[in-house]
Amino acid sequence: MQMKEEVRKVKLASPRMAASTGDTRDLALRMMGEALEREQEAVFAANRVDMEQAEADGVAAPILKRLKFDEGKLRDVVAGIRDLMGMKDPLFRKQLRRELDEGLTLERVSCPIGVIGVIFEARPDALVQISALCIKSGNCVILKGGSEARRTNKKLFEVIRAAVQKAGLPENCMMQLEERSEIRELLDCHGLVDLLIPRGSNAFVQYIMDNTKIPVMGHADGICHIYVDKDADLEKAVPIIVDAKTQYVSACNAVETLLVHRDIARALLPRLKAALDEKEVEIRGTEEVSAIIPCSAATDADDSTEYLDYILSVKIVGDVQEAIDHINYFGSHHMDSIVTENAQTAEQFMNLVDSAGVYQNCSTRFADGYRYGFGAEVGISTGKIHARGPVGLEGLLSYKYRLYGNGQIVGDYASGEKQFHFREL
Amino acid sequence: MQMKEEVRKVKLASPRMAASTGDTRDLALRMMGEALEREQEAVFAANRVDMEQAEADGVAAPILKRLKFDEGKLRDVVAGIRDLMGMKDPLFRKQLRRELDEGLTLERVSCPIGVIGVIFEARPDALVQISALCIKSGNCVILKGGSEARRTNKKLFEVIRAAVQKAGLPENCMMQLEERSEIRELLDCHGLVDLLIPRGSNAFVQYIMDNTKIPVMGHADGICHIYVDKDADLEKAVPIIVDAKTQYVSACNAVETLLVHRDIARALLPRLKAALDEKEVEIRGTEEVSAIIPCSAATDADDSTEYLDYILSVKIVGDVQEAIDHINYFGSHHMDSIVTENAQTAEQFMNLVDSAGVYQNCSTRFADGYRYGFGAEVGISTGKIHARGPVGLEGLLSYKYRLYGNGQIVGDYASGEKQFHFREL
Repeated sequence: MQMKEEVRKVKLASPRMAASTGDTRDLALRMMGEALEREQEAVFAANRVDMEQAEADGVAAPILKRLKFDEGKLRDVVAGIRDLMGMKDPLFRKQLRRELDEGLTLERVSCPIGVIGVIFEARPDALVQISALCIKSGNCVILKGGSEARRTNKKLFEVIRAAVQKAGLPENCMMQLEERSEIRELLDCHGLVDLLIPRGSNAFVQYIMDNTKIPVMGHADGICHIYVDKDADLEKAVPIIVDAKTQYVSACNAVETLLVHRDIARALLPRLKAALDEKEVEIRGTEEVSAIIPCSAATDADDSTEYLDYILSVKIVGDVQEAIDHINYFGSHHMDSIVTENAQTAEQFMNLVDSAGVYQNCSTRFADGYRYGFGAEVGISTGKIHARGPVGLEGLLSYKYRLYGNGQIVGDYASGEKQFHFREL
Repeated sequence: MQMKEEVRKVKLASPRMAASTGDTRDLALRMMGEALEREQEAVFAANRVDMEQAEADGVAAPILKRLKFDEGKLRDVVAGIRDLMGMKDPLFRKQLRRELDEGLTLERVSCPIGVIGVIFEARPDALVQISALCIKSGNCVILKGGSEARRTNKKLFEVIRAAVQKAGLPENCMMQLEERSEIRELLDCHGLVDLLIPRGSNAFVQYIMDNTKIPVMGHADGICHIYVDKDADLEKAVPIIVDAKTQYVSACNAVETLLVHRDIARALLPRLKAALDEKEVEIRGTEEVSAIIPCSAATDADDSTEYLDYILSVKIVGDVQEAIDHINYFGSHHMDSIVTENAQTAEQFMNLVDSAGVYQNCSTRFADGYRYGFGAEVGISTGKIHARGPVGLEGLLSYKYRLYGNGQIVGDYASGEKQFHFREL
């Protein structure tokens, strides 16, 4: 219950945060960047303790790499903060301005969502990026980072929160949870938290979605496809598939299933097999595939499995429509790519595949806020309600309608005494 | 289970619906309007049976009024369909076009949400409006109207569906549920239905929200406030309050709580009391209010009660900030109005009140898609995720990212061999 009271303080701060000026929020970003540079030694020291503990606990190398917070990462996040400062204030933008009748003016103005809870992996730079995005967009934020980064996060949060308060933002515009057990309490804060953004494993995100009434933005799994059309350029197809599968095998935008047009299978598969062998990728194919290249046998389960591993399932299809139907049925609406030189086939694929990202002739791994030029991202959404795909500043906004009158009542319009005349201003 | 299979057919139709051209969708609207006019007698006949049944069942007069579907209502809905036809195609709009690197182009394009389930009251004209909005926006729709309108809805749906199919839209782009028991099954269609829009009573909407994993857009209650500031013009304040309370007492945007600045209470309340007495509105006031005018005693529960009746709770506050705090705490974030001639006070109120609509010097009853110039609305959203306030065409859209390359892989950018250069096109 005590935590809920803390969350309520954040909620109460949110209207003032929403009404803060762009200058104050940019000042907060500047002071945040300066404070991080000034107190970097204390942050690095905390991170060294986290790293030692993680190593002693036998944490895997890729996780250690993300856990580390050093001069290089500090430079990157501070550069990211400066990029955000340079962007136009996303709040108070008039998205619509319409005269409904003489002296009755409607405006739609962008505003923050309110209080956003972000649960993220043990990556201290993520804490800084998420905080900066929320400050720029006028949102209050409740942060819960991976426990391996506990000490680093605690120090980072102290530094950032102090800087932000000094800049004049509301005292309770940021809050950090330190215990994993507090997540359960956070999930009960319906009405106080406006949006939850969980990042992490499929099972974890699903757990969050199943256990809260707070709207959740995120993605549970990422079963991404590449379809190699009969009009594909194989010089492009092979490197794209290898990159999409192996460049970062545990990413949600790595390819899991390859669909190949029957007419090009005999040309593509042997070349692809040679390239994937070099990266030690296991191919799981249908009978038709195994008649062309040696591979292990795919089962029905492979159609809906996110391997996050050096495994690729391969299937042969008769045409682009069969590929589209397969993707819409088995995919996770995250992102899917077609390799073809035929613009018409590409358009058909891109119009009919119901995913946040539809690509032609490039790797699935481009689905990322940084690579889209959003500066940073707070997550990826596979939902179609609100933001979709990589979520940057814009996905953290809502809007409100303002109506300015001089005494108008609805009765006069209902009786027909007055009429609306809509005029864009 | 059989129903789920029907819903799956709608889901499978949705990518083709999304890829339909604006011309086809406008043709469907035209043919729908013509078919409704051509078959109006059959619709009116069905409606007469519904009306007779409802009268025999003792249904209340205001509900009968909404149930009736006659020449006047037909004319209105057909006019609405023609308005929609005249609007620009909301799909395939490029919201962003950015070169990420040479030959690698990102686009963000508007697209439909997919399959939308709308559960609405016994108002046959709503069926037509919702269908038209979904067709224009390329969404498949599953309709469940109030059971009093069963026969009218069945006939309307037959006419509309036949016209839409004839125009070339997918066979399964529309579906109608006829039994109330089917709502429960619909709630289980997570993954097949992309969005539910329930309209109706507080308890019903809450039931929907609590019993589905499908995203829900709507509003459970509408506790709307008017704050009369010390700088209010009483000539405006009194009619605004009377209109907001009595013009349509059971609407979600009717005012429930009046907050009055202490300095103006003695001037306002007696005049207001006289005006409300004429409309037989009961005033429930705090002790401070009852020292000025006769009224019944308000309890704490009145702060959070949506009366939907001729009752108004009245409270006196010390300043605009106290009013803002009261509204943010007790309100339902629907819409709230300030009466003041002071532009600065109005700005403070409109910036800090966290509601979908914030009004100055006009009645709360203006919160409505038609009055905002949206043509029609599918509902009102008090959430801040996705659409907020009255939801028209725009609220039925999502977007997708398209990325066009010529063989780009992420490995080249990760290694530093290539660099992104973001350029808006």
